[in-house]
Amino acid sequence: MLPGPTNVPERIMDAMLKPMINHRSADFTSLLKSVTEKSKYLFQTKEHTLTLSASGTGGVEAVAFALVRPGDSVVVPVFGEFGNRLSEVVELAGGKVVRVNAELGKIPRLEEIREAIRKTDRLKAVCLVHNETSTGCAVPYTEEVAKAAHEKGAFFAVDAVSSLGGYSIPVDKWGVDICVTASQKCLAAPPGLALLSLNRKVAEYLKKSPPAVRYFDLGRQLEFLERGETPFTPAIPLYYALEEALNMLIEETLERRVERHARCASQLYSVLDAIGLKCFADRACRSNTVIAVNYPAGIEDGQFRKRMSEDHDVVITGGFSNLKGKVFRIGSMGDVSNAHVQRTSIAMAVTLTKLGYPVDLNKITGMLASAG
Amino acid sequence: MLPGPTNVPERIMDAMLKPMINHRSADFTSLLKSVTEKSKYLFQTKEHTLTLSASGTGGVEAVAFALVRPGDSVVVPVFGEFGNRLSEVVELAGGKVVRVNAELGKIPRLEEIREAIRKTDRLKAVCLVHNETSTGCAVPYTEEVAKAAHEKGAFFAVDAVSSLGGYSIPVDKWGVDICVTASQKCLAAPPGLALLSLNRKVAEYLKKSPPAVRYFDLGRQLEFLERGETPFTPAIPLYYALEEALNMLIEETLERRVERHARCASQLYSVLDAIGLKCFADRACRSNTVIAVNYPAGIEDGQFRKRMSEDHDVVITGGFSNLKGKVFRIGSMGDVSNAHVQRTSIAMAVTLTKLGYPVDLNKITGMLASAG
Repeated sequence: MLPGPTNVPERIMDAMLKPMINHRSADFTSLLKSVTEKSKYLFQTKEHTLTLSASGTGGVEAVAFALVRPGDSVVVPVFGEFGNRLSEVVELAGGKVVRVNAELGKIPRLEEIREAIRKTDRLKAVCLVHNETSTGCAVPYTEEVAKAAHEKGAFFAVDAVSSLGGYSIPVDKWGVDICVTASQKCLAAPPGLALLSLNRKVAEYLKKSPPAVRYFDLGRQLEFLERGETPFTPAIPLYYALEEALNMLIEETLERRVERHARCASQLYSVLDAIGLKCFADRACRSNTVIAVNYPAGIEDGQFRKRMSEDHDVVITGGFSNLKGKVFRIGSMGDVSNAHVQRTSIAMAVTLTKLGYPVDLNKITGMLASAG
Repeated sequence: MLPGPTNVPERIMDAMLKPMINHRSADFTSLLKSVTEKSKYLFQTKEHTLTLSASGTGGVEAVAFALVRPGDSVVVPVFGEFGNRLSEVVELAGGKVVRVNAELGKIPRLEEIREAIRKTDRLKAVCLVHNETSTGCAVPYTEEVAKAAHEKGAFFAVDAVSSLGGYSIPVDKWGVDICVTASQKCLAAPPGLALLSLNRKVAEYLKKSPPAVRYFDLGRQLEFLERGETPFTPAIPLYYALEEALNMLIEETLERRVERHARCASQLYSVLDAIGLKCFADRACRSNTVIAVNYPAGIEDGQFRKRMSEDHDVVITGGFSNLKGKVFRIGSMGDVSNAHVQRTSIAMAVTLTKLGYPVDLNKITGMLASAG
């Protein structure tokens, strides 16, 4: 139950064993085309999609270098670690970042973001983390930020690494010019690939103004994609796995996958409520894919997660940087199901009781039975 | 018989199916430590080794950004496509490149490189492609270039993407400050990981002067490695595969693997001689891992490779950019054995005969029998 890498279904793991092929061959071209087309379903786009042999963080860096040139101003809402990272790569690309900060566990008010956009001169882009993995907060106003960015003539980029597929982000409809996610989150594929959507506006811009990096040069990636290739040797087994993961998404449908994520998260939030634990994220912005929970007094992070893992085989993770030791985080994404929710809930209840925070197990199992 | 990705032995493929683990866990730390330690055997180093979830080209870019700061002068011998690429990423990092060119199929004379090093002011680094995959040329003077670079107080970097493991490059002994290779070449693992060695001189430099990139920031990679982590989610299945590939290297020993590569290449060169085909690379610098061969008049690239693949299941590749249609290239690396050499040789002989270039098949099989 990690917020990525998540459990990878056997079908997807087995796909990695398909024969190693020449990446300059018709076989790879057909694999790449399949992945590219199926990704369009995920992003709900008729524009371009791309894959990079790199983690989601690499994809986010590619987005920053795609849009930002030295001296450009960029608005970045920051409400956790991944907002910080996004700001940092925008700065590495030479951008001047206008941060719209929020207290951890909250998100900036839409009006604050709009205000920053209106006030910023030479605004090149607005870059938004859709779902902040470090705090378990998701934003409900992606489309509205897109509008505000476009009114100012700026690009709008979304980091949906830990949410796309668990959430619906129709990039064409909402006006997301470039969006990035990763293989090992809501797609339940192994880690190692970043997926991107980008529209013709970004593609045209990249032709006129290539970025000062090579591996993450999205213009070059598009150019090669047109002839069915990647510029550099791709991580072939991960492409096979991603293709199978996208097949599974299409079989399930995006609609049902999003609904499943919402349902599992809602059950987990109810259980946490019943246990008496407080979520780190504000109720108004709590995420359907990453659930951050405050430790009650007296429960020690290392011990709690060790017992969860050793006694119940349920692996969750701790807090990021400042939140280390203060919260634990549950990834409710990818392959997540009622069975996972039940097992995790019971493991939490038993472990907390064992560690001196008594939980009424009957109440929890009763809840789960009526929900399941 | 591709110059990467190469055939991946079943043992290595199967290793990818090991369970998906948390990359912030003791399990991953122990996998990372194992890969890091075993890589030291490959590089023959007591200094640092690193892995990046990216292709070899990504690793080469990381090397350029590690060493080069805007305005630095860098000497790069260029004798093919990968020398060009290396120059380009040095330029992206802000370097002024002093190219030492050679005609394709040859390598620069050592004295020319020494001269360029001596003459260049504010020389920051010398970056050398050890084995030029596009032309099948390898340099015999790596250690000498290291000395010349160090006499000038410059860093010395080697791109050994398509050669390390097939060649011995003892980085500590020869004074290679930073060296890069990739998983899918002489290690016979799937593509998607770059491997690097770097010494304390580079590590100290990176602490003082961090590069203006994030994903390929080798200083940050080292910092995380010290606590048994990678900065970003690693491509876990590829780490499992790489560990198994390194196990196989250690079982075989580097010495015997290098000898095997030399023997297979030598057999292939003899067969090509007997067939009457001319190698693209000068005899003095021809490679033990990539063999580029001039097409005889009347043999068409697409047709030849199609017949090789469809009739004999032997996949080779064509020429790069300017050499497209003029040469074919055989990768003789990784898992390559006498059996591969025999099958490839017979496939070539039969296919050439079929396409109107008659070869004495008895002579070839006789040669192979006495060699095998």
